Parts: sequence; structure tokens; C-alpha cells
Amino acid sequence: MTIELIPIRGIPEIRPGVDVAELILEAMRDSGISLADGDVVVVTHKIVSKAEGRVVEVVDEEAYRVLVATEAAAVIRRRGDLVITKTIHGFICANAGVDRSNTENGTAILLPVDPDRSAHRLRTRFEAATGAALAVVVTDTFGRPWRRGLVDVAIGVSGLPAILDLRGTPDALGRIMDVTEIAIVDEIAAAADLVMGKADGIPAAVVRGLGLVGEGQATDLVRPADEDLFR
Amino acid sequence: MTIELIPIRGIPEIRPGVDVAELILEAMRDSGISLADGDVVVVTHKIVSKAEGRVVEVVDEEAYRVLVATEAAAVIRRRGDLVITKTIHGFICANAGVDRSNTENGTAILLPVDPDRSAHRLRTRFEAATGAALAVVVTDTFGRPWRRGLVDVAIGVSGLPAILDLRGTPDALGRIMDVTEIAIVDEIAAAADLVMGKADGIPAAVVRGLGLVGEGQATDLVRPADEDLFR
Repeated sequence: MTIELIPIRGIPEIRPGVDVAELILEAMRDSGISLADGDVVVVTHKIVSKAEGRVVEVVDEEAYRVLVATEAAAVIRRRGDLVITKTIHGFICANAGVDRSNTENGTAILLPVDPDRSAHRLRTRFEAATGAALAVVVTDTFGRPWRRGLVDVAIGVSGLPAILDLRGTPDALGRIMDVTEIAIVDEIAAAADLVMGKADGIPAAVVRGLGLVGEGQATDLVRPADEDLFR
Repeated sequence: MTIELIPIRGIPEIRPGVDVAELILEAMRDSGISLADGDVVVVTHKIVSKAEGRVVEVVDEEAYRVLVATEAAAVIRRRGDLVITKTIHGFICANAGVDRSNTENGTAILLPVDPDRSAHRLRTRFEAATGAALAVVVTDTFGRPWRRGLVDVAIGVSGLPAILDLRGTPDALGRIMDVTEIAIVDEIAAAADLVMGKADGIPAAVVRGLGLVGEGQATDLVRPADEDLFR
């Protein structure tokens, strides 16, 4: 089983209120990408947020700080300009996910209000247009403690389990694995980023060949505070 | 540019002292995989560690606890049986990376002494055998704070930058991106895991089409303690 990561080129700049599902479908048609059963469409949240009107004006640094404070459900750590926050969804990331890159000067992009729901809406549209059984993952780019560099993770999902629970599955030697819950949608998000690329303006990709079906939500990835040693 | 994730099937159970590079090459030949310039061979550290003799006997839980304490350079957090440690390489992970899954009962697998060097040795062998310009990534499966589930990350690399530094690069709107250091080898490790699979006993994969060259080491991913808000 080979998996293909296929960039979706030709998605235009997204303005608030546009039909982003249709624009992604058009870009796929123009690129000769025909969706098939089991395909996963991975979409950066930025174009989803923009289409959903989650773009706000930011006149200066102070306005940005106020915006981050407003968007954050809680502040976990703070050092200088760096604020590690919990979002309303429960995700822990810098600056409440408020993003000033890949946007015009003077504006910032917020996270979707309900990224799992955004993923589900896109999936419904893609399935209606193609007749295929699909999944959708909405991503963002998060930092990590302890490890330098950012990676893409899932903040919304529809049509896939968020976590693959292999506990109780025999491993290659027939031994029952003790701790193996794989954050499969985060691995899918990271994989898709390899063909999306921050600088290239490719905001979506197809992951083909995964052979995985199920239902989950990205909020399944949120570790309950009482299980977390690092808050 | 489409990226392919190709599992390498048919790698036999690895015993201490075997020539793991040759066994991976044989498995690729048997599977009809011909390495080409730019291919990245991703290998789970378990077979590297086994080949390097990093397998020790563990008679009981107490022996395991002692082993973890011996392997750890520092303990970061502890709750019950869960010990979050810093390894000798600087990585922060559970149980100093000492692994009891996918091993025979009564033994545990340690991390390679120098996974970057292990990656480099494999790369040298693969390049000598194929004549292609290649990269190698050695992976392990780590948990994360805040997010449930494990993901594969890079603990050794040769022939690739660990981090892609896009700071100062114009984004799709021509705006200079402020914070975009991508942990590209961690994304490669996560991607490869989609075809490796814990339960399937596929310990290696080829990532083809990345179009990336450079030199880095996995220890580049270690965030210095004084930049880390979560120790």
C-alpha cells in the first residue's frame, strides 16, 4: 500500500463569504484530481477561517495583544511577546491561534469557531460533488515544547478517527502492545504539509491510499488537564 | 509535485549484530523498490537499536524502572509509573525511550547511542549500494503534552535539514513571514508512519518526491532548556 500526497494547486486567494468548498473542487478539476473513495482532503484552516469571515483588522501591536487575549480561553505560559494559550476548543498553542502570516497587512486570521464542524461541512460538499466516501482534515501549524520548529496538526476532522487505538492489538511478534494510541490525524496533517508548504501558497492537499475509515473529532486529541503534566 | 510514501515490506526480525542496512536493501530489491536521487529512507529506531545490540534483559518491573533511571539524563516529570525524561541526546520523552513493545518478552530496546550517526551510516551504505543521493531519517514514537496520542518524530537524520527555516521568505501574498521554522524531519517521520504502522511490523519506508536537500542533525530539534517554558 503506497500513500500519495497530492497538492491541490490553483486555489485562489479566499475572501470572506466565498464558497471555499466550490473553489477547492474547481482547483481539483483544473488539476485533473478526481477524488475517490477513501481520499482525505487536508485543508489549512486559514482558507476555511477566511471563508467563514474569521478575519479581523489589527491596527497595531497593542490591538494584536488585545485580540489574542480576547480569543484565548486561558493563558498557560507567557514570556515577553510569546503567549501560550488554551483556545476555546481546548487546543494549546501560541497566541490563541491568531495568525498574521499569509494575510494582508493590517489583518489577522482567527481559528474557525468549530473546526470539526467546518471539516464536516467541507466533507459533505465534497461527497455531494464527487459521489465518493471522503474524509476532511483541517490543519493549523503549532509549536511544541522541547522540540524546535513547527509542525502541522489537525484542528478539525470528519470521516476519520482522530486517534487510532492499537492498545490490545498484537504487535509483529504477537505481543500485546501496551501503549499505542496513535494520533493518526496529526500524522496526516504533518504529511500533507510536505506538499502544501508555507511559502508556496498551496492551502490544500489530497492524501490517497490511507485505507482508514471511521468517525472522530479533533477535540478527541485534547488531553484532559488532569492527565497533563505540563500546564 | 506528488510525494509517495512507500512501505518497505519483508524486512526480517532483526537480531543484534546483523547487517541491518543489507537487510533493508534486500527487502527493497525483493519488493521492486529502486532508490533514486532525493529519496528519503525512514527507519524506525527499533531495528537500528536491535542491530546495534541495544537490547537488554528486563526480568521484572523493578528492573525496568532501574533501566529507565540509568538511561535517563534527567527526570522532567513523574506521576506514578509515567516518567518523562531527558535522554542523553537531549530528547524529552517517556521512559528515556526504553521500549518494551515489538520486542520479545523479557527484553527492552534502548535508543541508539547516536541516532544521527546511525542515520549517516545507513545513508552511506544505501548510497554505496544504489549510486543515488539519498537521505535517512531514524524515528521513534513520542507522546506530546496537551495532545492525546503518539506521533512518530525524527531522532536521527542524515542528508536533510532537520528544520526548514522560512523566516524572511515571502509568503503567498509577498508578506515576509515572521515565525516559520518548520520541523520538516518530524513531518517526514510522521508521514512515513502512515505506511509503517505499529501493528504491521513494517519498520521502514521510502518518502519519494520531497525535493529537499541539505544537511542537518536531529539534535538540531532539541530546544535549548533556556528557551523552553515547559521544563
